[in-house]
Amino acid sequence: MKALVYEGPGQRVWKERAKPAINKPTDAVVQLTHTTICGTDLHILKGDVPSVERGRILGHEGVGIITEVGEGVTNFKAGDRVLISCITSCGRCDFCKRGMYAHCRDGGWILGHLIDGTQAEYVRIPHADNSLHPLPQSLDSAAAVMLSDILPTGHEIGALYGEVGLGDTVAIVGAGPIGLAALLTSRFYSPARIIMIDPDENRLAMARKLGATDIVTDTPLESVRGITAGEGVDVAIEAVGIPETFDICQRLVRPGGHIANVGVHGRSVELHLEDLWIKNVTLRTGLVNTNTIPVLMRIVQAGGLEPATLVTHRFPLDEVEQAYQVFSKAAAEKAIKILLTAE
Amino acid sequence: MKALVYEGPGQRVWKERAKPAINKPTDAVVQLTHTTICGTDLHILKGDVPSVERGRILGHEGVGIITEVGEGVTNFKAGDRVLISCITSCGRCDFCKRGMYAHCRDGGWILGHLIDGTQAEYVRIPHADNSLHPLPQSLDSAAAVMLSDILPTGHEIGALYGEVGLGDTVAIVGAGPIGLAALLTSRFYSPARIIMIDPDENRLAMARKLGATDIVTDTPLESVRGITAGEGVDVAIEAVGIPETFDICQRLVRPGGHIANVGVHGRSVELHLEDLWIKNVTLRTGLVNTNTIPVLMRIVQAGGLEPATLVTHRFPLDEVEQAYQVFSKAAAEKAIKILLTAE
Amino acid sequence: MKALVYEGPGQRVWKERAKPAINKPTDAVVQLTHTTICGTDLHILKGDVPSVERGRILGHEGVGIITEVGEGVTNFKAGDRVLISCITSCGRCDFCKRGMYAHCRDGGWILGHLIDGTQAEYVRIPHADNSLHPLPQSLDSAAAVMLSDILPTGHEIGALYGEVGLGDTVAIVGAGPIGLAALLTSRFYSPARIIMIDPDENRLAMARKLGATDIVTDTPLESVRGITAGEGVDVAIEAVGIPETFDICQRLVRPGGHIANVGVHGRSVELHLEDLWIKNVTLRTGLVNTNTIPVLMRIVQAGGLEPATLVTHRFPLDEVEQAYQVFSKAAAEKAIKILLTAE
Amino acid sequence: MKALVYEGPGQRVWKERAKPAINKPTDAVVQLTHTTICGTDLHILKGDVPSVERGRILGHEGVGIITEVGEGVTNFKAGDRVLISCITSCGRCDFCKRGMYAHCRDGGWILGHLIDGTQAEYVRIPHADNSLHPLPQSLDSAAAVMLSDILPTGHEIGALYGEVGLGDTVAIVGAGPIGLAALLTSRFYSPARIIMIDPDENRLAMARKLGATDIVTDTPLESVRGITAGEGVDVAIEAVGIPETFDICQRLVRPGGHIANVGVHGRSVELHLEDLWIKNVTLRTGLVNTNTIPVLMRIVQAGGLEPATLVTHRFPLDEVEQAYQVFSKAAAEKAIKILLTAE
Repeated sequence: MKALVYEGPGQRVWKERAKPAINKPTDAVVQLTHTTICGTDLHILKGDVPSVERGRILGHEGVGIITEVGEGVTNFKAGDRVLISCITSCGRCDFCKRGMYAHCRDGGWILGHLIDGTQAEYVRIPHADNSLHPLPQSLDSAAAVMLSDILPTGHEIGALYGEVGLGDTVAIVGAGPIGLAALLTSRFYSPARIIMIDPDENRLAMARKLGATDIVTDTPLESVRGITAGEGVDVAIEAVGIPETFDICQRLVRPGGHIANVGVHGRSVELHLEDLWIKNVTLRTGLVNTNTIPVLMRIVQAGGLEPATLVTHRFPLDEVEQAYQVFSKAAAEKAIKILLTAE
Repeated sequence: MKALVYEGPGQRVWKERAKPAINKPTDAVVQLTHTTICGTDLHILKGDVPSVERGRILGHEGVGIITEVGEGVTNFKAGDRVLISCITSCGRCDFCKRGMYAHCRDGGWILGHLIDGTQAEYVRIPHADNSLHPLPQSLDSAAAVMLSDILPTGHEIGALYGEVGLGDTVAIVGAGPIGLAALLTSRFYSPARIIMIDPDENRLAMARKLGATDIVTDTPLESVRGITAGEGVDVAIEAVGIPETFDICQRLVRPGGHIANVGVHGRSVELHLEDLWIKNVTLRTGLVNTNTIPVLMRIVQAGGLEPATLVTHRFPLDEVEQAYQVFSKAAAEKAIKILLTAE
Repeated sequence: MKALVYEGPGQRVWKERAKPAINKPTDAVVQLTHTTICGTDLHILKGDVPSVERGRILGHEGVGIITEVGEGVTNFKAGDRVLISCITSCGRCDFCKRGMYAHCRDGGWILGHLIDGTQAEYVRIPHADNSLHPLPQSLDSAAAVMLSDILPTGHEIGALYGEVGLGDTVAIVGAGPIGLAALLTSRFYSPARIIMIDPDENRLAMARKLGATDIVTDTPLESVRGITAGEGVDVAIEAVGIPETFDICQRLVRPGGHIANVGVHGRSVELHLEDLWIKNVTLRTGLVNTNTIPVLMRIVQAGGLEPATLVTHRFPLDEVEQAYQVFSKAAAEKAIKILLTAE
Repeated sequence: MKALVYEGPGQRVWKERAKPAINKPTDAVVQLTHTTICGTDLHILKGDVPSVERGRILGHEGVGIITEVGEGVTNFKAGDRVLISCITSCGRCDFCKRGMYAHCRDGGWILGHLIDGTQAEYVRIPHADNSLHPLPQSLDSAAAVMLSDILPTGHEIGALYGEVGLGDTVAIVGAGPIGLAALLTSRFYSPARIIMIDPDENRLAMARKLGATDIVTDTPLESVRGITAGEGVDVAIEAVGIPETFDICQRLVRPGGHIANVGVHGRSVELHLEDLWIKNVTLRTGLVNTNTIPVLMRIVQAGGLEPATLVTHRFPLDEVEQAYQVFSKAAAEKAIKILLTAE
């Protein structure tokens, strides 16, 4: 089969690889029909994630058809159309039993990281019963592939960890894919205002289309102070992953408010405890557990979320290299999510 | 009347001051029978709290007898024995209606800070109906004065914000008054282990007596790793207020765990988001709201908490200057809380 | 002034009464500009609420202009436009401090019940600081009067006590005013389906317009079983107040589900614990606390709720007797809420 | 092997049966070292549980040594000492993923009910990875067997569903095994008072020993009214399962309080909604999920719970028939839990 292989910093190749097989009775093999590229894949390619070894097939999102299951798999059979969770979970360790799949003792984020991933014609999925989701026929595949990672992450780590509530004022710093996913899913909880902060006008226009009530390009502290009559925001969602954007969040949040850190950080940040100790604020961080994938599927089916609005570009899977070129210049290309299809 | 007056950095005098009177219909005047000194008072004396002006009477904790009430006060009358909350709350602003008394629009922490405080023979209490608590006869005054600030702070900002839960492993960094208050009140929620970390052996001996299951004097990271089989703690409570102790907390906490910052910080800290972004941790900060004072009183009456175990030294109120001398050398004097009485 | 006076079962008269005055320093007097009739008023008129004495002015909902305040009132002054909460709360008793205004030791539901109410030209409001809400100019009065009782009740006792959640299937039994209020406010939490059950086709048509995804006129058990593939509903909201409708709720709810009882019951019901003991269900009851009035006002201002869609009929205040005639034949008149104005 | 077999209403026999074998790869076979008798077993023997067929081996609690595991079992191997959960859970259905093991699509309460149980020398445990718990060596077997059902039930359905909180007043109606288990586990959350209600003086004496602050033998409504100064209790736990005891609970609970129904009911009850609709109460029911078994094991190891205090009688397993005779006259025999051992 063909697959996108990481061959060291800056190097990726679409090349021939052996088709994966069942290793353990709980495995399934899935033939990908749809996948996409995540910002994390770009981090890996820059060499920022040293745990990824050369030779690794990238990708942790996808939709496909099961071609084979191990004899211990009971929820699925060959021919089933499935959504692949970016998080693999055994369902029987202490973390899984508490719903913390991100920290599964025999899983977590391993696809396209510690084991071969989904930017390929086939992928082996360990612990298939807990790591795949059956796709109802009515659920569009382009929509579904947005539920592998980007939307559950925006939802769980952004909206839920930020405790977005009825009538709240929410600021989201960063209008890239993950910021927009946090925007779409924050709306489930009926905040009164969602302020989107980003220097990129195109992305803010997209944010406006997706439901932002206010957009801010520069001087975010002053702008938000104006919008909130000096009170600050109830929820600040960090969706970039650098010290500067984290700093905006900690300065925007009002007493009693919440900061949800969704961004992947490569460096420490300065936390202004000399101001925050007295403000009764809550900061949460985390990797997605994907336990809200089933409910997000129900919401998509009920018409309450249109994930495909995030898809700006489409390529056949075997043009994944061109797709990477576009995605790596996302701002200039006005790219949010790129859909790769192999149907 | 006599009162302890702040006269600029390093300077405090027990001197004659005018007895306070009712200013607003919602005020009460209380004759102090018991008060104490808080670590914050030492910070003020060092000049670290510039919002405190010269001439301010210090102190924000106390028990006493009401001598006079304004005509708008309905819960209390002259002669009532009361506990003074360190937090003044109007009960009718948006923050108060949400139970966030620390951020009351016409109150918060003002006693001994923005208005005259409780280290005096008399004190005026604004918004008396919401800022005083009736003391049942069976409740000892030495116990009660520990409920003005130290125990609600340990409870609300330590145990509750840390979400101490059944069977948890809790680490408390700092075995001073506030760390010990966090220890006593964390026990309400039946954690399996409470690890107390402090370089001072005397304080750790006190911690052991008050229910710590493990004590650690040095190499806290290695020690806790040993105690927890490498897993880290469910809850880390910062009870000092300096970058070094905050750092211990962020390194001790396990995936899914909680950090409660109780310490008062004068400087920013380095937050290791490059490690924590993926760990699904929660950090909370805050000033006490004191809304758990009533339930703490019930627990004391039921025999479930003995606040007076925190009292190591006793002085008559008019020897408050000597009391400050002892408290400012707390470690050497083996002092935790000092009780000042004027009965 | 003129007021609608209860003169015993079946008897109400629009007649001259003394204009109310300030009794206590915490009172305010409000000149009504808008009020409405509640189903509870009909119960009173039937003689079902014996605690209402002859001579009582009815009504507990309203919007108006303050004409006078007691000297203890600090949040309001004469001339302020205000929303009257149906619940009076002192803000300083144990229940109020826990946000349980419905059980205020010196308040609760007293307007038009134990003291004179709002179907009058003027009304005296005790504990004005905690029982009135300032109305922003942008908030329409017809909308606002729906926030006195009907919408907070639907929200707090229906949606919140039912724990309506993302992707849930909700059944609301009864499409009268309170059922429709529960429908409108359940939508804040993004359930996947809202099934409205009522024998009245007109009311179901209204429900459909307000966002119900499914409507059921008869054989509710079979119908809902069909809609939910035999699984039952996550949330069942009782919005009628008779044994038959309660019974539907307890039979519809799935394992782990919630029943919220909003209806006012005059008789006991049969609870099928022989079926429910094993089903892990939660049943909640209650009188509205109205602590969500402020957030509902924000949502209305943000365009997330249009309360005036509930208003089907309008009368001048001095035609309140005709209004009662219409409202007492609500189904035939296709009436939901009737707006009475005195501007 | 030998096993206690249900042979129709009123008939049980200790007789030879085939030793169970692995049926599915996820099964394990456990050699029992300890088991016990549950009140539910008596219900079955009375013929009250028609889903139990003749020929069924009874019992759903136990500790033992694994003799064999299917090839799909990864958490356990032969020779492991394990605790058997009374609830079997597959870990991969929608209910299990939400932690609702009681409603597992391929499990729930099946042991000694729909499949052969634990009052035998050997038992087959389906879905062993999720239905067994490894027993640390330091955990005594007599203690552990109390964690199969009785203590998790008291904890989850009593203390947790009742939301027992700090400083609360709790009433437990019924001082049998399950009421005492609710008592022991309610104490984890530091209520101020626990009132135990039962006509049996012996059981109340046991309750007193286990931490009840008040005991009530008759006129429970008047007695509790006296104890609570007319306010009622924060939490009422029903631990019998008949209409009379449920009725006491609904009359004792204060506004804002909780009723937790732990009793197994064979008949419907009368729910006084005409009183309760206005009282903002919460009623919860349920079958134990046993997801707190691991934390209860930690608490036992930490010395915070002594389950063996519930054991009043001990028999060798092959005298199980005598044990049943004692347990069926529990009050007269002063029996709480009977330990059966086969070591």
